[in-house]
Amino acid sequence: MNYEYLFNIIHDKDRVRFGKNIEEKYLSDGLKRVKGVADILVFPLTTEEVSDVMKFAYENNISVTPRGAGTGLVGATISTTCGIILDLSLMNKIVELDEDNLTITVEPGILLKNLQAYVEERELFYPPDPGEKDASIGGNISTNAGGMRAVKYGVTRDYVRGLEVVLANGDIMNLGGKVIKDSSGLDLKDLIIGSEGTLAIVTKAILKLIPKPKKSISALISFESLHKGIDAVIKIIKKNANPTAIEFVEKDVIQNAEKYLNLKFPDIKGQAFLLLTFDGDEELEIESNYNKVREVTLESGAIDFILLNKKEDIDRTWQIRGALVTAIEAVSEQEPIDIVVPINKTADFISYTKVAEKKFGIKIKSFGHAGDGNVHLCVIRDGMEEEEWNEKSHLLLKALYNKGKELQGLPSGEHGIGLNKKPYFLEVTDRVNIEYMRKIKKVFDEKGILNPNKLYE
Amino acid sequence: MNYEYLFNIIHDKDRVRFGKNIEEKYLSDGLKRVKGVADILVFPLTTEEVSDVMKFAYENNISVTPRGAGTGLVGATISTTCGIILDLSLMNKIVELDEDNLTITVEPGILLKNLQAYVEERELFYPPDPGEKDASIGGNISTNAGGMRAVKYGVTRDYVRGLEVVLANGDIMNLGGKVIKDSSGLDLKDLIIGSEGTLAIVTKAILKLIPKPKKSISALISFESLHKGIDAVIKIIKKNANPTAIEFVEKDVIQNAEKYLNLKFPDIKGQAFLLLTFDGDEELEIESNYNKVREVTLESGAIDFILLNKKEDIDRTWQIRGALVTAIEAVSEQEPIDIVVPINKTADFISYTKVAEKKFGIKIKSFGHAGDGNVHLCVIRDGMEEEEWNEKSHLLLKALYNKGKELQGLPSGEHGIGLNKKPYFLEVTDRVNIEYMRKIKKVFDEKGILNPNKLYE
Ligand SMILES: Cc1cc2nc3c(=O)[nH]c(=O)nc-3n(C[C@H](O)[C@H](O)[C@H](O)COP(=O)(O)OP(=O)(O)OC[C@H]3O[C@@H](n4cnc5c(N)ncnc54)[C@H](O)[C@@H]3O)c2cc1C
Ligand SMILES: Cc1cc2nc3c(=O)[nH]c(=O)nc-3n(C[C@H](O)[C@H](O)[C@H](O)COP(=O)(O)OP(=O)(O)OC[C@H]3O[C@@H](n4cnc5c(N)ncnc54)[C@H](O)[C@@H]3O)c2cc1C
Repeated sequence: MNYEYLFNIIHDKDRVRFGKNIEEKYLSDGLKRVKGVADILVFPLTTEEVSDVMKFAYENNISVTPRGAGTGLVGATISTTCGIILDLSLMNKIVELDEDNLTITVEPGILLKNLQAYVEERELFYPPDPGEKDASIGGNISTNAGGMRAVKYGVTRDYVRGLEVVLANGDIMNLGGKVIKDSSGLDLKDLIIGSEGTLAIVTKAILKLIPKPKKSISALISFESLHKGIDAVIKIIKKNANPTAIEFVEKDVIQNAEKYLNLKFPDIKGQAFLLLTFDGDEELEIESNYNKVREVTLESGAIDFILLNKKEDIDRTWQIRGALVTAIEAVSEQEPIDIVVPINKTADFISYTKVAEKKFGIKIKSFGHAGDGNVHLCVIRDGMEEEEWNEKSHLLLKALYNKGKELQGLPSGEHGIGLNKKPYFLEVTDRVNIEYMRKIKKVFDEKGILNPNKLYE
Repeated sequence: MNYEYLFNIIHDKDRVRFGKNIEEKYLSDGLKRVKGVADILVFPLTTEEVSDVMKFAYENNISVTPRGAGTGLVGATISTTCGIILDLSLMNKIVELDEDNLTITVEPGILLKNLQAYVEERELFYPPDPGEKDASIGGNISTNAGGMRAVKYGVTRDYVRGLEVVLANGDIMNLGGKVIKDSSGLDLKDLIIGSEGTLAIVTKAILKLIPKPKKSISALISFESLHKGIDAVIKIIKKNANPTAIEFVEKDVIQNAEKYLNLKFPDIKGQAFLLLTFDGDEELEIESNYNKVREVTLESGAIDFILLNKKEDIDRTWQIRGALVTAIEAVSEQEPIDIVVPINKTADFISYTKVAEKKFGIKIKSFGHAGDGNVHLCVIRDGMEEEEWNEKSHLLLKALYNKGKELQGLPSGEHGIGLNKKPYFLEVTDRVNIEYMRKIKKVFDEKGILNPNKLYE
């Protein structure tokens, strides 16, 4: 293939890199394990460049793998075939802040942390808050990222008002807009959200903002066992106390992260913890909310309830929460899972992981978003030999995904399917659903050039 | 066509009606104007019956028009070809209330008013609140219905967790579930929502509930002119006062509805009004919210601000608001429009309607959901001769839809497109979007038997 033509599209030589000039990090993702292949890496600066690259790829049947910040955990951005990696990180501008309509229009490469800082300086708020702040908004949209604040505020999908996308053949399509309501034909916008770059390239997004809550505090609640903690969650939710986040974690996972970061978790007795935040404008409202939670958790057997008021305590505690996965990874290779089950099945699912640990002889650490049933598991390799690990972990994962299904759950709450979860996704998803996903893929990308071999393919 | 075969599927003769035994109301919709055609009307009781009817229709290339309660305003449920009307009104059961997960599973034919009453008796709440409470949930889902409370709570789409649908070929597909988060493949669920029966038949829905707010009050604010009222809306929104509803209406429209219902609107000076509700659990929170609104509206030139505290006053006032369209219709044929624009363009759009009234010599009444830019217009025939009306109203509508587009709006915020708005929808929607909608239609319904000739077709 003569890729030289790309210089007619992208005039800046620095933004077109060939073969061995492609740094390794561009061939992998947030797990940094699997290494993909690619002929060329391009960094477009404009929608027109993206469109022209896609036209070239379309005409020449070249595969194109869109890439945001490469922090994904499921291999979705790993290029599996020779072809183009289309890295959107340089398209990272804020196009417009509209304070009347409370929207911000951004290019896809902007990092979440930069977007959050920009709006919060202006007393505005972009609620979706996945753990990795160095992810791009384009990546967040393409995986429908969730995060800590989903309990109160919802996920990325809920904040995407409009999209500009480039299709496989290079055509540009606009979806939604600044309007709040939309019953104007088929909902193509939501089809693109969460499609992990398999249907189109997101080149612009209009995001919904809200006024920034004036106050935010956290509460830490401890229990004798994880099971007791999880049992309390459903009671908290029924109390209508409007928490922003409800995370759960066991003591040994915390200790590991404390060591890794060399930071101290608040001093509290117990084997398992719930970490909550409450936000709002009125002190009284927040107080009434956390008091409801204090009452109901102490009634249902919590050992202790402490309020984190000081910014420094709050930041440190959440920093530890944020580092759980990385701290585990520092000790051992692990396979991250984010199965989601109905909230009242969370405890059952976690109980099953304890059974599965024994049955398959592999350690599992569980923690995550208790408030929305999105359990995060780390399946830990712990030095196991390659062959044994591959075989055993596959059986364990299969069992876990099937358990999730049995409990009326789904394989991914926020990370997506990508490459790594594809076999399990195909196993637990009805044939007819996969069939229609594939047919829709054909509508958008009949040549199969956009992020091939992922998800449902 | 030998429809007798349907008796093998639906054993109850009463639930299969032929030609002249089809009552007229089943051939029309909420506007009761256009009369469609159909060979046969069936009332399935189960998903299996729906599936079997679809298999029969698919094999024999018979068109099928799904029907909920027939209250739609855009002709979407009017059968345009000989074939089957599939009326889902008898599939109206509540399948399961899940108080742990705060979900309710229902059949599509259940009426909104019955669902609302059922959950509210149990201190739960289904927030979507379109004006017509005799609509079915299946219809609400298929049009992505909005309504009064959308400002605070969102629209129908935001409350659909899971769907069971029957496809054109009779296959059954399950989408989503009781889980809160979902990044598990392409979002087929949102594609079905709002598709007006053109992609699949909704046979079951899992809906999200919230705890019922303990208190609710309304406020009525009056202005010298509609323009002043609309200008105040954006200020209200920026105050972060969390109103549940913000409706606007002019005095003459109110007077018309007062006469029609023989009810009295609260005594208040002014030519135009904003009607708001606030709800929540804490008296103080509500008070703080309406005080913010009182302050900002009086500052920006409101004549009066009155609080409606008594249930009786609130009910009467909202009853009048609910009857605006019907009261207008009682006087003259009208064409309803629900163009949606970015909130800060609402005033511009309404100003344009005043210009357009003069230019085209047709009266326009405007009112509606000021809090989300979803302007409702009634274009009034007022006894105009058929030919003149058809010609003039078409030009006026075309101008209005184009103005909506110019203001970055969309043709429908909540009613859908159906038959009536199809020409305007096709006019203001990009070709590429229409092309992809048509291709997706082909994926779901390659024979074109499901609700033909609607929306994007
Ligand atoms: C420590 C850590 C914590 C994390 N915590 C969370 C969490 O709490 N919640 C959560 O949801 N996720 C979490 N993640 C996962 C990850 O951050 C998210 O999936 C994120 O959305 C990926 O964004 P990215 O820019 O890195 O995308 P990438 O990894 O580069 O790509 C992800 C997918 O999106 C596609 N894509 C990227 N940009 C575009 C575009 N412009 N157009 C079309 N397709 C595109 C890619 O092709 C790929 O399929 C975490 C990851 C790490 C490493
Ligand atoms: C006085 C009045 C006030 C109104 N106020 C509002 C309002 O405030 N907000 C708002 O959004 N709407 C409003 N509407 C419009 C109407 O009530 C809604 O569009 C409603 O959602 C239609 O529901 P239905 O059951 O009557 O559906 P129908 O009119 O029977 O059908 C509507 C569409 O849905 C399809 N459909 C119905 N059931 C199914 C199913 N089970 N599977 C697949 N397709 C199906 C039909 O084919 C058709 O395309 C109002 C209507 C009236 C008459």
